[in-house]
Amino acid sequence: MRDLTVAVVGATGVVGQAMLAILEERAFPVKRIVPIASARSAGAEVTFGGASHVVQALAPGVFADVDVALFSAGSGPSRQWRPLAAEAGALVIDNSSAWRMDPDVPLVVPEVNLAAAATRPKGIIANPNCSTIQLVVALKPIHDVARIRRVVVATYQAISGAGRPAMEAFEAQRRRVASGDAARADEAAEPTLGGQLAGNLLMEWSRDAATGYQEEELKMVHETRKILGDEAIRVSPTAVRVPVLTGHSEAVSLELERPMEPEEARRLLAAAPGVEVVDDFEAGVYPEPIDCAGTDPVYVGRIRADLGHPGGLQLWVVSDNLRKGAALNAVQIAEGVLGTRR
Amino acid sequence: MRDLTVAVVGATGVVGQAMLAILEERAFPVKRIVPIASARSAGAEVTFGGASHVVQALAPGVFADVDVALFSAGSGPSRQWRPLAAEAGALVIDNSSAWRMDPDVPLVVPEVNLAAAATRPKGIIANPNCSTIQLVVALKPIHDVARIRRVVVATYQAISGAGRPAMEAFEAQRRRVASGDAARADEAAEPTLGGQLAGNLLMEWSRDAATGYQEEELKMVHETRKILGDEAIRVSPTAVRVPVLTGHSEAVSLELERPMEPEEARRLLAAAPGVEVVDDFEAGVYPEPIDCAGTDPVYVGRIRADLGHPGGLQLWVVSDNLRKGAALNAVQIAEGVLGTRR
Repeated sequence: MRDLTVAVVGATGVVGQAMLAILEERAFPVKRIVPIASARSAGAEVTFGGASHVVQALAPGVFADVDVALFSAGSGPSRQWRPLAAEAGALVIDNSSAWRMDPDVPLVVPEVNLAAAATRPKGIIANPNCSTIQLVVALKPIHDVARIRRVVVATYQAISGAGRPAMEAFEAQRRRVASGDAARADEAAEPTLGGQLAGNLLMEWSRDAATGYQEEELKMVHETRKILGDEAIRVSPTAVRVPVLTGHSEAVSLELERPMEPEEARRLLAAAPGVEVVDDFEAGVYPEPIDCAGTDPVYVGRIRADLGHPGGLQLWVVSDNLRKGAALNAVQIAEGVLGTRR
Repeated sequence: MRDLTVAVVGATGVVGQAMLAILEERAFPVKRIVPIASARSAGAEVTFGGASHVVQALAPGVFADVDVALFSAGSGPSRQWRPLAAEAGALVIDNSSAWRMDPDVPLVVPEVNLAAAATRPKGIIANPNCSTIQLVVALKPIHDVARIRRVVVATYQAISGAGRPAMEAFEAQRRRVASGDAARADEAAEPTLGGQLAGNLLMEWSRDAATGYQEEELKMVHETRKILGDEAIRVSPTAVRVPVLTGHSEAVSLELERPMEPEEARRLLAAAPGVEVVDDFEAGVYPEPIDCAGTDPVYVGRIRADLGHPGGLQLWVVSDNLRKGAALNAVQIAEGVLGTRR
């Protein structure tokens, strides 16, 4: 297949940078890379394929001849510029929440529902939320066999999902706390974090007053159903930010239509695409976020019978939120749709 | 009532130190304080009532004339020395796990089941596990009205519960990570933590191979039932250590016999002893461990209808694991049994 012109929108952000790195790592057939960002970052340079590339501002004409546009620039730019990219004929894969629940936009995790990407009336495929992607990769093999009826999930989410300014604010907090300079941060001085995360836990996602849930939690409810294609799945979510740089972790309890023993779940998960089982309980082996950062799989451990729900299961699911939770999944969608995986 | 001779066993540890501070703060009627520790710490001095007191080694005779003995010295010393203290006529309140599930030993959280402390065939009252204490204080007012059938709980536990050497190891890790000297700790060099906790999550409690659960998780299963006096309550636990110094947090989902709206739960919790509701969702107000450390209440926030289980509830429960989770609860048991609260 011919090589492609690939635009990365948000190329200077943490996810955009991961997209560029992953396109290289996986030898995606790039003829020309078009790094794009907001006007503020235009003119900066990014590295790809051993060369520097000047970042262009989002503007009319920027998507001319672009075959694939990977968007990771937030909901505003996605809503504004996606039509231009699609009209230019590009396959648009969007990492924002702008289009995910649009019935005319497929929401895709390749290991789970690549087929849904075949029909895209708006010329766009949505990349799911980070906490949902790793969850559904772990749920899929169990759901196929035993029909998941309910998911109780408590997250332990890393800070890198909130972007580079949040990471930098967190690292500064961490240095202050470690040096004893200040045990507490001034909340108002931490707009990117919403408070002190070093030595603490936060829940600072947007809030939906009607339900009493954070948007981050509602994404796990609705996106999980859409990706697994089963509106009957009930989800009880709690989203918590922990003082970890990269690597989301999730404590998951599953209620199943047909009871399943942990051994069967372990076999199914070990054979599932994108999953790596890390689960030697007696040896104290389970997935730790620090080990998972920088790698591709969704790691599943602590696979056990649910003491509180006979026939149910409990799992511990960890993955790199920037890679499988964002950039890697977007590139995998492109590979799947275009058949470019080498 | 006459003033009392009070022994604190494990007086140099983090919980023992908190016990001494709390006895003072609450003006417990102490005539004489008897700080006790292992032979290794004997001869050290601790401060109480504005004076220094030499720490005695655990030895025969040390409990002579002692009215109340607060044990926080681990299961081994508790098993070995508790008989001596009880034979000397002391009321023994033990913070170890040694006696908690013994049917002849009451397991007491004063706000929940102080009456159980009236009968103590072995002369001992057990102080529950830290993660269980804050959980049952929050569950009690809901259970009384709506009968809790199932609890799914994922913990975010602070390091101070693991003792001072673990705290010091964690603080050293945190300094190394913050300064960029080492992103990773050598696991073998961290026997008190079991690995790297700075910037990471760990599950390093003792393991029960038969169930696939950590002992810390099984404590939440069995102690919750015993304290609430209801063997029908089913518990689905996950225990996780987070890089927080003090303050355990818990994401809790409740299934109830009789459905309950969040507003009713909020009213019941606001009126419950030992609970403080911190829950202004629209203003982004919820309990954070850093705010709760050093204080007494069990804080409950994020009180909401369970999206995944109609009629159920979800809560976020935070408390100081050294105070309500250990030292404060022990002192409150003594106050309740002896009627000494001034």
